[in-house]
Amino acid sequence: MALIVKKFGGSSVANAERVFNVANIIVEDYKAGNDVIAVVSAQGDTTDELISKAYEINPDGPSKREMDMLMSAGEQISIALLAMAIEKLGYPVISLLGWQAGFKTDSKYSAARIKSLDTDRLKAELAKRNIVIVAGFQGINKYDDITTLGRGGSDTSAVAIAAAMNADLCQIYTDVDGVYTADPRIVKNAKKMQEITYDEMLELATLGAQVLNNRSVEMAKKYNVELEVLSSFERKPGTIVKEVITMEKMLIRGVARDNNVARFSIIGLPDTPGVAFKLFNNLAKKNINVDIILQSVGRDGTKDITFTVAKNQSKETMQVLEEFKQSVGGQKIIFDDKVSKISIVGTGMETHPGVAAKMFEALYSAGINIQMISTSEIKISVLIDIEYSDLAVQVVHDAFIE
Amino acid sequence: MALIVKKFGGSSVANAERVFNVANIIVEDYKAGNDVIAVVSAQGDTTDELISKAYEINPDGPSKREMDMLMSAGEQISIALLAMAIEKLGYPVISLLGWQAGFKTDSKYSAARIKSLDTDRLKAELAKRNIVIVAGFQGINKYDDITTLGRGGSDTSAVAIAAAMNADLCQIYTDVDGVYTADPRIVKNAKKMQEITYDEMLELATLGAQVLNNRSVEMAKKYNVELEVLSSFERKPGTIVKEVITMEKMLIRGVARDNNVARFSIIGLPDTPGVAFKLFNNLAKKNINVDIILQSVGRDGTKDITFTVAKNQSKETMQVLEEFKQSVGGQKIIFDDKVSKISIVGTGMETHPGVAAKMFEALYSAGINIQMISTSEIKISVLIDIEYSDLAVQVVHDAFIE
Repeated sequence: MALIVKKFGGSSVANAERVFNVANIIVEDYKAGNDVIAVVSAQGDTTDELISKAYEINPDGPSKREMDMLMSAGEQISIALLAMAIEKLGYPVISLLGWQAGFKTDSKYSAARIKSLDTDRLKAELAKRNIVIVAGFQGINKYDDITTLGRGGSDTSAVAIAAAMNADLCQIYTDVDGVYTADPRIVKNAKKMQEITYDEMLELATLGAQVLNNRSVEMAKKYNVELEVLSSFERKPGTIVKEVITMEKMLIRGVARDNNVARFSIIGLPDTPGVAFKLFNNLAKKNINVDIILQSVGRDGTKDITFTVAKNQSKETMQVLEEFKQSVGGQKIIFDDKVSKISIVGTGMETHPGVAAKMFEALYSAGINIQMISTSEIKISVLIDIEYSDLAVQVVHDAFIE
Repeated sequence: MALIVKKFGGSSVANAERVFNVANIIVEDYKAGNDVIAVVSAQGDTTDELISKAYEINPDGPSKREMDMLMSAGEQISIALLAMAIEKLGYPVISLLGWQAGFKTDSKYSAARIKSLDTDRLKAELAKRNIVIVAGFQGINKYDDITTLGRGGSDTSAVAIAAAMNADLCQIYTDVDGVYTADPRIVKNAKKMQEITYDEMLELATLGAQVLNNRSVEMAKKYNVELEVLSSFERKPGTIVKEVITMEKMLIRGVARDNNVARFSIIGLPDTPGVAFKLFNNLAKKNINVDIILQSVGRDGTKDITFTVAKNQSKETMQVLEEFKQSVGGQKIIFDDKVSKISIVGTGMETHPGVAAKMFEALYSAGINIQMISTSEIKISVLIDIEYSDLAVQVVHDAFIE
């Protein structure tokens, strides 16, 4: 007998038929003698309806406190419906809201962080042999006000429960059946991985693989919670995410691409100490995350700084740069959002020289020009023209994985 | 400066436009320097959607515990939207769920009773000069599980807050603009009352006037909370409900009718002691509420018992009677649901003889036959053929009020 935590996203419970599909998955594990806690997101259409109701009232965007009050009703609906389906199948079940399941958070509405998880109620319900359905994404702060955990919050809720309850496995059900060596929609011969390490998964998530939320992988790594990414629509094993993997020994684990990128250059800055520090400090103050950075000495004793940010932060970035050019000096600003970031990830690469060279060669052979390069211990990223994005993923994948 | 509690039903917040209408009503009183707590029901269409989702999952009817979890999301949505509208108008506001507002109930899911109301949070929010929006109809039990108060529950929530907070006035906004001497849809010359006593209101509510929920009037009477019934669609004074009224001195306050009535007779019961007791005891055990009762001695030493129940309890009533006839004896059962109960209510009548005679005369003059009669200190009810229901209301109203 094991304790299994399962997380189902909004699309997995989108209608009555899918709710029963999820109920059957849960009941199957329960019948085998396991304790089961299922964390559920809001039904997809509920979330959309609630958002549109809120913006109909206030098109400028309502306060985050009231938005959290509103949105958290979405999971309340889905947990009740899932519990009803399990009742209908004839199994003992109870649904719990975030606060009832013990989730205490800080007060950052819409992006709260979990401060503690009081597991008394969860344990009491399992002791009664109840299947427990928990509302993901939500908790309460010290004022007893409802908070939500922000994007991917239900994954985080599930991992937090698995960690606090010492669960044997935390299964994240999505609409894909595992983690692939590249996006199967682009690379036809992409392969599903049986296992992947937390660090590799983190790099892949950051790089736009969008299978698992980063915060939840970080938390799983910290508390050593074994994750499984699998599909709620097909009954087959997914991909296990854990600390050390044993089965496969591949140099490169996967190829990821991120098209939500924009490149900025500020040309002809004075070559004095502290210029770069001031620039990135100003960006940080506006909560702008800078990714790849390149600094080069220009002609006539000036320097150029080039960096990438998320495309949807272009407007704020341009504003910071304009002000910076005014106050510090600089010749011009160059902006390009027709770029794509292609990355390879693998814990093996740090002990294998020549990985970068092999990647560059694959791109060169396909006639793709590299604009910027960034490397870490377990990944290499390059920035290219967005026109060649799909081709780049394919040729890099072919070079390392096929 | 006063403390005003306002309650708005589902139709008053049915869409964004109406939510703003309610927001403006609230803000008007707040701007005048008052403290305002508004209790809100779920939007009408939300309630319908949630019920249909639940019955799609389980057509036999889900457990009441999960149904309460589901339905209480409805008010969560409406309080957040109303708070957003008030924010948009530029006033400080906070929404609170039933449990956040301090509502503790017993554990009778779907029909819970309020056990206590902890007003700390409400007081703290008013002290900050916040407008407070409270989810009606809901609370939590001792296990920290969500409960709902059942039919008319939001009225009860509002009166409970008014009582516990010593509010100066509790305004119940509905889609009618007050309490009338008769249903204005039937009696064109029906008049709106300025004031009415709790007892009169209770009789009128029971008799099918359906303006206020009985539990809330009982609670208002118990804690001496002054109520006002008024329209959220028109800005004009409604009807005040209180202990002693001063302004009007009318013998009869109003004429009510109830068509949800069925009449049963059991003929030829043995004339032995305890027969009536046993019959009504059996009905009570099935939670069947008996209204008018008539017992008469039949021929040949038997007796007949005739009584009325709510029409929707006819099936259970018939079952009890069939069993009773089998075990105790009796000749036959007569059933008629083509009947209507017409009642006059007024605290004045107990000291004025001749009221009953005047009512019977009015009906006789219109050619309407009276089947049963029931009287109490402040009301007289008669059962008639449903065909004459509208006419009876009109002629009785004309006799006393015009």
